[in-house]
Amino acid sequence: MRAVMFDESEVSFRDDVPQPVCRENEVLVRVLLAGICETDLQLVQGYMGFCGILGHEFVGIAETGQFTGQRVVGEINCYCGSCETCSQGLTTHCPHRTVLGILNHDGAFADYIAVPESNLHRVPDEIPTEAAVFTEPLAAAFQIPAQIPLSREMQVVVLGYGRLGNLCAQVIRLSGATVSVVGKHRRKLDLLEESGIATGLLENLSPDRGADVVVDCTGSPSGLPTACQIVKPRGTIVLKTTVAGTPEMTLAPVVIDEITVVGSRCGPFDRALAALEHDDVAVLPLIDRRLPLSAALEAFQIARTTDALKILLHVNDP
Amino acid sequence: MRAVMFDESEVSFRDDVPQPVCRENEVLVRVLLAGICETDLQLVQGYMGFCGILGHEFVGIAETGQFTGQRVVGEINCYCGSCETCSQGLTTHCPHRTVLGILNHDGAFADYIAVPESNLHRVPDEIPTEAAVFTEPLAAAFQIPAQIPLSREMQVVVLGYGRLGNLCAQVIRLSGATVSVVGKHRRKLDLLEESGIATGLLENLSPDRGADVVVDCTGSPSGLPTACQIVKPRGTIVLKTTVAGTPEMTLAPVVIDEITVVGSRCGPFDRALAALEHDDVAVLPLIDRRLPLSAALEAFQIARTTDALKILLHVNDP
Repeated sequence: MRAVMFDESEVSFRDDVPQPVCRENEVLVRVLLAGICETDLQLVQGYMGFCGILGHEFVGIAETGQFTGQRVVGEINCYCGSCETCSQGLTTHCPHRTVLGILNHDGAFADYIAVPESNLHRVPDEIPTEAAVFTEPLAAAFQIPAQIPLSREMQVVVLGYGRLGNLCAQVIRLSGATVSVVGKHRRKLDLLEESGIATGLLENLSPDRGADVVVDCTGSPSGLPTACQIVKPRGTIVLKTTVAGTPEMTLAPVVIDEITVVGSRCGPFDRALAALEHDDVAVLPLIDRRLPLSAALEAFQIARTTDALKILLHVNDP
Repeated sequence: MRAVMFDESEVSFRDDVPQPVCRENEVLVRVLLAGICETDLQLVQGYMGFCGILGHEFVGIAETGQFTGQRVVGEINCYCGSCETCSQGLTTHCPHRTVLGILNHDGAFADYIAVPESNLHRVPDEIPTEAAVFTEPLAAAFQIPAQIPLSREMQVVVLGYGRLGNLCAQVIRLSGATVSVVGKHRRKLDLLEESGIATGLLENLSPDRGADVVVDCTGSPSGLPTACQIVKPRGTIVLKTTVAGTPEMTLAPVVIDEITVVGSRCGPFDRALAALEHDDVAVLPLIDRRLPLSAALEAFQIARTTDALKILLHVNDP
């Protein structure tokens, strides 16, 4: 089959990759559409030491199992189900987990992917495939209200105007909280303004300490210090993105201002699918380009430009 | 009067310092006993850019106001009382605050200190003066249960065996949680063992990810990474100490394991005084040395040794 592989140092498109062999609990999914994520860009820089088929945002058609012939999306954490962490319901934190396209599990930039059946969710007919491909990052955004209480009285600032920042802002708005997004690039901010979300340029940001919650989606070492400057004392900073390496930083403001910093990763697929089904969030305007799987290397280059939003890889027709 | 001053570069004992002049809301307190804290050691290294009379842990006798003639201890944050932060009850975070012996307010290593009357608490007769001098750091330890829920089912690890770590461990034990303290020096750990708290040497620490809560009292850049290795996924790390400078660090584990990091500073004096009154915590065994105010420079040197616990400065007889 065709697949986009990362092998220690370089990304390559190949057409001679063996089709994945399903384990007992897995089903085979024929991939229709896949999205390139910031994590993919980091993986090909060596993050996680991943080798194999990339890709973890996808929509496909199940070839086996209970969803055979239906469109599905898949949660990315493949857990053991029997350890203490799993028994506490924290399956996304299973210490034995593999992660689709990220950790010891081949991903979705390929004709086929093997996914544990319990990770799959059927895509409701109302959701176009190009919207369903946003389920995984949208679920990550829905992890924020799952972790911290949000209410109408709250002022929330999202730092980072990109793919994830946009989705987080839309999800937070659903809670009734007042949300604004701070970024560096007018074009991406304009997209948010069009959906009615207030925005501001980072260079104009005044550290008025008025935010109850700041969500850091910057993926930059400057994200946390900026968040500390605008969050209220005893406020909350949500870290949605990791930062490569070990940058120099101080956590003194976290102690002095008694800030709560909450790490936030994967989220509830059912909540994301419900939001897509009911048009609670607008994801289609985030699509910048659609390229065939064979043009994956070009797609990666485009995704890396600062101006890029979501780049999709068209893998197979339905 | 006599006072221990820090003036940009050096600590000095002087006997020609003018007695403080009280502002409208302040009362004059004659200092009996004062404690040297880790923060004092950092201040004389340039932290906060403080200049003036050092010292913020003290017991004294009020010379004016409603507590005249009585033993008092004083909360260290002097707030405006009229800003938005104060009106929300977050007086310890008042952006206009001064802090006794730390920020724009002369401290307690002196014959007299001027303290806002609303910051004072009368010391119950049952509490010896040498125990009452621990009220401020003990209150900081009681800030932990004020910020995060603790219960019998929880495993809590305190990193840092010193003055504050000891008090935090004793306070956490009052909640019924299982607490252990991890440190580098057997002698300090033995003191905890004597009060029935389990201890372990840092070098023997196994990263088994079993702790619901880890309290970092190390004041070291290694504290947070160590805490990340032993806290459960979705667990809580409480930062009780600041780290000087901007060390290199990664917060990726906070995101990946969805850890909550809570900064924690000053705490409730009433709770600390009640615990001292009822002998809920043992503070007297923490006293290493008692020196006269005039020997403050020697006292600072002793406090700086890794083996030191609490060094007290005897200022005046009752």
